[in-house]
Amino acid sequence: MKTEPTTGTLHLVGVGPGDPELLTLKAARIISSAQVVAFPQTESGTTMALDIARGHVAPSAVLEPISIPMTIRMPNGEFTSKEEHYLAAAAIIEGHLLAGRDVVYLCEGDPLFYGTSIYVGTGLWDRFPVKVVPGITSMNAAAAAIPFPLVARFESLTVLTGPSPDEILLPSIDDAGSVVILKVGRHYDRLRALLEKTGRAEWAWLVENVGGERQRIVRVRDAEPGPKPYFSLLLCYSGAEFWLE
Amino acid sequence: MKTEPTTGTLHLVGVGPGDPELLTLKAARIISSAQVVAFPQTESGTTMALDIARGHVAPSAVLEPISIPMTIRMPNGEFTSKEEHYLAAAAIIEGHLLAGRDVVYLCEGDPLFYGTSIYVGTGLWDRFPVKVVPGITSMNAAAAAIPFPLVARFESLTVLTGPSPDEILLPSIDDAGSVVILKVGRHYDRLRALLEKTGRAEWAWLVENVGGERQRIVRVRDAEPGPKPYFSLLLCYSGAEFWLE
Repeated sequence: MKTEPTTGTLHLVGVGPGDPELLTLKAARIISSAQVVAFPQTESGTTMALDIARGHVAPSAVLEPISIPMTIRMPNGEFTSKEEHYLAAAAIIEGHLLAGRDVVYLCEGDPLFYGTSIYVGTGLWDRFPVKVVPGITSMNAAAAAIPFPLVARFESLTVLTGPSPDEILLPSIDDAGSVVILKVGRHYDRLRALLEKTGRAEWAWLVENVGGERQRIVRVRDAEPGPKPYFSLLLCYSGAEFWLE
Repeated sequence: MKTEPTTGTLHLVGVGPGDPELLTLKAARIISSAQVVAFPQTESGTTMALDIARGHVAPSAVLEPISIPMTIRMPNGEFTSKEEHYLAAAAIIEGHLLAGRDVVYLCEGDPLFYGTSIYVGTGLWDRFPVKVVPGITSMNAAAAAIPFPLVARFESLTVLTGPSPDEILLPSIDDAGSVVILKVGRHYDRLRALLEKTGRAEWAWLVENVGGERQRIVRVRDAEPGPKPYFSLLLCYSGAEFWLE
């Protein structure tokens, strides 16, 4: 008797910003029972998501490093080569799913919040079952580490990314409410100039590698110029924290 | 020999949006070793944060229900009575801290992301040690449940609250990028009208009680009019999901 082949399920699992204790119970359970664990690996060999989750990966699990260029650049000529990376990654995962093996793809922070899961996974969503486990974002972890309320009452929150061009950033930064800029990295000096231009530098914090061993938190007014680590963010409060009154 | 009295530490602990498995390992550890567990209780007796975390609370822990009016209203005359609630809550917690007992205050979602922790805790921050454990937000859990990427590449994300007046909401909803509106509740019809006016209704989802037993996910174009549960949110995608191309 022949049984129909059954495809596997792709689990996109958020592992949080860096502290292994910020994994959820659900993430820990799904990772520990995974047959195949895929994870992003940068060109320099860094495997941050795996490093965070390593304590939960079963010894019998097949490990699949997925080559991902972590430096986000403008969508110019280099965009195509990133697309190729993602297609190659999806093909590796697809092979396991077609063979009936469930795949857990580990993702820093939350999988659907600027995560590599999005680029790796979307080509597979229409053809395989996909389940997502949300994760703690670097934004929430940064507010907790400072600690100061991120948003309250009727405040708005705007989230932006450092590599975005000025014409996208400027009108949004200028608004009231809290502003978070992720992936600051080598864009720091330009972003700081934008914050100063819009009067948002005074209540801004620079948070590097939140939850990791190299975590550093400093007010923007006290931070030195120059490039910052890839996993750095700027957290700008509105300065009108009226719940304190 | 007399020893100096030592005050306790206040831990503001996020328990996520509703699914007990979305607690972090850190939250579970800190809750399970807590001497005093405080948690918001609505006027109708609902204790959502405690319900989520109950499996981790030690039998010996002192339980402190904190009376919190959950319905957010405009800052008019009723505002004062809310302030009194928060001061009364802070006084209860302060009593334990002064007696040297650590207090864990449970908060739905993330403590510093529109959490009641902010209003209860800020009067205590300057005088006692405060530690914050971030939690999974309803926003990230909603995107995971749909599932569809919340934000990617150079997209922006704007987070707003339903009770905010139109003059705050309208310019922000009109912007490009993803828009999330929390605490939809009885404001749904007004918010839906704003989404239609700004052309954002087509790619919008209504997510009620994410992670809880009464979770419901429906596209706005298919949702009936009328009030929604307090823990409802609107998730509006930009509709230009170019990573899918």
